[in-house]
Amino acid sequence: MDIGLARQRVMSAPVGRLGTVSGEGRPHLVPCCFVLSDETVYTAVDAKPKSTLALRRIDNIAANPSVCLLVDHYEEDWSALWWVRLDGTGRVVDSADEVAEAKRALVAKYPQYRSLALPGPVLGMDVQTWRSWP
Amino acid sequence: MDIGLARQRVMSAPVGRLGTVSGEGRPHLVPCCFVLSDETVYTAVDAKPKSTLALRRIDNIAANPSVCLLVDHYEEDWSALWWVRLDGTGRVVDSADEVAEAKRALVAKYPQYRSLALPGPVLGMDVQTWRSWP
Repeated sequence: MDIGLARQRVMSAPVGRLGTVSGEGRPHLVPCCFVLSDETVYTAVDAKPKSTLALRRIDNIAANPSVCLLVDHYEEDWSALWWVRLDGTGRVVDSADEVAEAKRALVAKYPQYRSLALPGPVLGMDVQTWRSWP
Repeated sequence: MDIGLARQRVMSAPVGRLGTVSGEGRPHLVPCCFVLSDETVYTAVDAKPKSTLALRRIDNIAANPSVCLLVDHYEEDWSALWWVRLDGTGRVVDSADEVAEAKRALVAKYPQYRSLALPGPVLGMDVQTWRSWP
């Protein structure tokens, strides 16, 4: 798949799966809503019920900043399968301007965020490599 | 979600995302077809075009056996979201009987495998913990 198509598929995907690695070297996967802006992926912690806003993914990137985002398509017709994988470096966004811009982009992509607060940290992933199949 | 519902959702999901960690500590995610048998998840390498049958996930579990399988559901109505995450230990299955049984289970779950060879290794993941949300 060419990079233009890969980018279009990532931009329009409503959900991806984010992988991080714990300090003990264990993989951790979560489904996530995200936006891609230039070469940075942003995800936020929303107000859906969960045990804590101090999420495992945030602890993990402090211990190991390697992050992977997988966007894929499944259907019963296996000739239509595809995936795009972005590998990069994660960080908690600390610039107030960058946090505000990321939240604006998330609200623009997801109407659901108009009525759901985003009280937690914003995670940025600076993409280093794109891989795709087929 | 109770463990019975979590198990039913995993059993009936056509696709999951498998996370492994490279020897350098980088996360690696792939979408995968799988079966759950007792407390072991099996995936196989099929004959769909790819660059090699010696897949990254196989190299990774040789370097670091920690494996994570995420099964989730996304839809626009966010009150219907859920995920189930299985954490465990991966291994390349070397018992011929276990390989045959895993392939039989995969062919039974996926009609697509009736016309697609499974020439590569079978990966087993012995599940240690189940987590789910909500």
